[in-house]
Amino acid sequence: MSLTKLKRRVSELADLGAAIHLLHWDLETYLPPGAVADRASQLALLGRMEHELFASEEVGEWLEAAAGEVRGLPPDADDVRVVEVTRRDWVRARRVPAAWVEEFARLGSLAQHAWREARAGAGFGHFRPHLERLVAARREYADFFAPYESVYDPLLQDYEPGMTARRVRAILDELRPALVNLVAEIRTRGRPIDAACLAGDFDEAVQEAFGLVVLRRMGFDFERGRQDRSAHPFTSPVARGDVRITTRFDRRFVSSALFSTMHEGGHALYEQGIAEEYARGALGRAASLGLHESQSRLWENVVGRSRGFWSHFYPQLQAHFPALASVPLETFYRAINRVEPSFIRVDADEVTYNLHVMLRVDLELALLGGELAVADLPAAWNDRMREYLGIVPPDDAQGVLQDIHWSGGSFGYFPTYCLGNLAAVQIWDAAVRDDPDLPAAIARGELGRLREWLGANVHRHGRKYEPDDLLRRATGRPVEAGPYVAYLRSKYGELYAL
Amino acid sequence: MSLTKLKRRVSELADLGAAIHLLHWDLETYLPPGAVADRASQLALLGRMEHELFASEEVGEWLEAAAGEVRGLPPDADDVRVVEVTRRDWVRARRVPAAWVEEFARLGSLAQHAWREARAGAGFGHFRPHLERLVAARREYADFFAPYESVYDPLLQDYEPGMTARRVRAILDELRPALVNLVAEIRTRGRPIDAACLAGDFDEAVQEAFGLVVLRRMGFDFERGRQDRSAHPFTSPVARGDVRITTRFDRRFVSSALFSTMHEGGHALYEQGIAEEYARGALGRAASLGLHESQSRLWENVVGRSRGFWSHFYPQLQAHFPALASVPLETFYRAINRVEPSFIRVDADEVTYNLHVMLRVDLELALLGGELAVADLPAAWNDRMREYLGIVPPDDAQGVLQDIHWSGGSFGYFPTYCLGNLAAVQIWDAAVRDDPDLPAAIARGELGRLREWLGANVHRHGRKYEPDDLLRRATGRPVEAGPYVAYLRSKYGELYAL
Repeated sequence: MSLTKLKRRVSELADLGAAIHLLHWDLETYLPPGAVADRASQLALLGRMEHELFASEEVGEWLEAAAGEVRGLPPDADDVRVVEVTRRDWVRARRVPAAWVEEFARLGSLAQHAWREARAGAGFGHFRPHLERLVAARREYADFFAPYESVYDPLLQDYEPGMTARRVRAILDELRPALVNLVAEIRTRGRPIDAACLAGDFDEAVQEAFGLVVLRRMGFDFERGRQDRSAHPFTSPVARGDVRITTRFDRRFVSSALFSTMHEGGHALYEQGIAEEYARGALGRAASLGLHESQSRLWENVVGRSRGFWSHFYPQLQAHFPALASVPLETFYRAINRVEPSFIRVDADEVTYNLHVMLRVDLELALLGGELAVADLPAAWNDRMREYLGIVPPDDAQGVLQDIHWSGGSFGYFPTYCLGNLAAVQIWDAAVRDDPDLPAAIARGELGRLREWLGANVHRHGRKYEPDDLLRRATGRPVEAGPYVAYLRSKYGELYAL
Repeated sequence: MSLTKLKRRVSELADLGAAIHLLHWDLETYLPPGAVADRASQLALLGRMEHELFASEEVGEWLEAAAGEVRGLPPDADDVRVVEVTRRDWVRARRVPAAWVEEFARLGSLAQHAWREARAGAGFGHFRPHLERLVAARREYADFFAPYESVYDPLLQDYEPGMTARRVRAILDELRPALVNLVAEIRTRGRPIDAACLAGDFDEAVQEAFGLVVLRRMGFDFERGRQDRSAHPFTSPVARGDVRITTRFDRRFVSSALFSTMHEGGHALYEQGIAEEYARGALGRAASLGLHESQSRLWENVVGRSRGFWSHFYPQLQAHFPALASVPLETFYRAINRVEPSFIRVDADEVTYNLHVMLRVDLELALLGGELAVADLPAAWNDRMREYLGIVPPDDAQGVLQDIHWSGGSFGYFPTYCLGNLAAVQIWDAAVRDDPDLPAAIARGELGRLREWLGANVHRHGRKYEPDDLLRRATGRPVEAGPYVAYLRSKYGELYAL
């Protein structure tokens, strides 16, 4: 049967993809510095092989025949969907020449290296020619999918199937004034929050131990995953039985490693929760990056920065760090929710975070649309920072060079962060609607109830449904700004006594 | 040019091989337990892809044309050798069907898992059906290279090009009586050695720190390599810039991690020392496993268990472990050289070690020759132990199940351990002939002198010469038992006052 052949090839692609994931994971965790160029070659080769293994004539023939084979099945049968998503992926892959894929991988590896040097002191000018090449390559990529309404649309598809630049703009345009207003209200008439209790000297091993307590309680399965350290935390879904997260520690702040651990833990629960029967198959991946981010932000923020969560876990944190013994729960809770415009996206609070994302989306649209030259990017970055957040970074390392994404040519990725934040609140609201005792359970330290609801309503489905459909099935609504704004107004209205 | 195409393909194979090395390294170091089956699939796929990428018609055509292109070059030109070794590898690879390669990789992964369970308590019976399949597969493999004098010959070629079962037997037959006699002399009339000073409670972190001191002094390049922990120490040459070793610690013994570190360090210096211009090329690998082992055993034993080495390093070891402060150097030196029949090969002393190897070679020859059934292997093991070493292991975990090799189907590998021991002494003798001050330099802690000699005479050549030629160039002689026996008689005659 062609469907059988097709599925076998998809499993092989999952195995090859696992090797690629591992090479990337290792690059960020354990690779000796002298092997960076070797690793770039390895990744370029495996990326090309992956493309060749998939975008072949024979896969096209199997798809054709498999479409006939599943015709008699009920429309919601898994195999119908397997053929559907694989065909869509294949049609997209066929548009992209193998030579482009290999060259792009090589450009990305070199650019990422230059970006690190630029950040470490060589400056934006050192990175600029690489970024110019990547922007040009991404325009070329978009043109493989012409015609399009926006040059951004073909890029979005790789991260968020079904999403368009038009819809992203509409959502951000609704969200932006609400956030800008809330930031202004907090600044002008909010009751100030003192976050001094978070700073001090916090032993890394103790931070790690507490993070593991929380991860285990969240239900992270260490039989099927592990946690390591890296400069920038990430989740690598090598395989269903091998979901790896990383974290980093800052001795000076008690909370940054913890929230990064919960964030990556949220991603990991999604990957570990995909139905076992989908493993190594076309449906055995997350539905979209936006939904992925909804899971990480739900755990990091909606749970991890809630009063209920800390009413249970704060005494344990105090036991780990006696310096916090004299800090009341409420003081700590307020500190981890302080709103303050800052330079670094990943350290931003829930209110300002999406403004960081909007700034990037604006600039990506302008770069790819040809309205902004790479040479003018640092200035444009700083202009937007002033406009959205009222501050300007002292240097590019804390500005335009802070994120890794562009150095790998990942344009169109940032919107998924914002969509994830919005969906996180929608999903939380739906979970509480289904199980009104959920907040109380969390306040008792019972995190499994939430994980189970997420498993049944989001995780297990993998790619069975389109992102929009999955969110509608789970919450009744498509992704939208309203619930997020309501969540922020309620939480921060109380915190800042607005 | 076809030679250019050929070299490009060889570099791709090096990159793919690097990914395979990393997957194996990770399997032994960091892989979550739930991902063992996933990893088996991944390794099977990449092994098949490697085989397909190499054993293709087009590579054959390039080889044909490249042979013409290098005809005008001097016979010792690198490119002449590139074509020669690649042709030999290709001819061998063509004999083996891709389906066999993939199936063998899968068998090996499953067998290795079963072997671990067998060792951990499930018993030999749990491993037996896997081993039966592997023996059958290896016989099938040998038959791809029929006709042969011994079924063992085609297997040996993969590890030790040019070596034959006949020659291995001749060398072992010369070595065996000399060892058996020396063991008997030591037992009956040797002055007893007390090794109690090596036992105690030795903090792992301190052991690790001292091991790193020695590794650095040996010249291990941490910019192009790293050390991790694994149950069984090994060296993984992922790439020239990425040579990874592992070690393990035993709190109860001060010396076992140290010697394993020096052993793997010796392997690593070989890999790190191959000429830079050979990187990712056909010559950019070690000449053979026997020569590889000569490097590990040279550092571990000829250097690491010498009086000179410890005359410099013992005060440092004492500084790390104050419990040794009252133990004289000579007592320590004698302790680390105590000869005593024991169950575990990797813990064996220099005198009995090769008897462990001979036992395995005997059994491999019998298994593959069909004279011994897998079911009878544990009994045959114990019989040989009694015959060669006069002791019988209390259980199979300390007997037939102790080594990983057979669980991966690596038959024909063990002889290289013995050949390596012999070559280590031949190489050491040649180095001292060239540089008579070498022992004194080592006693001053100057290990770089030896590393440089090895680099120039062994390491840098990679696969430029056949193993036999390389050893002759470095020492003037092929591999032989005489120098090793003389070395043992001299060293242990003095130690045991024979």
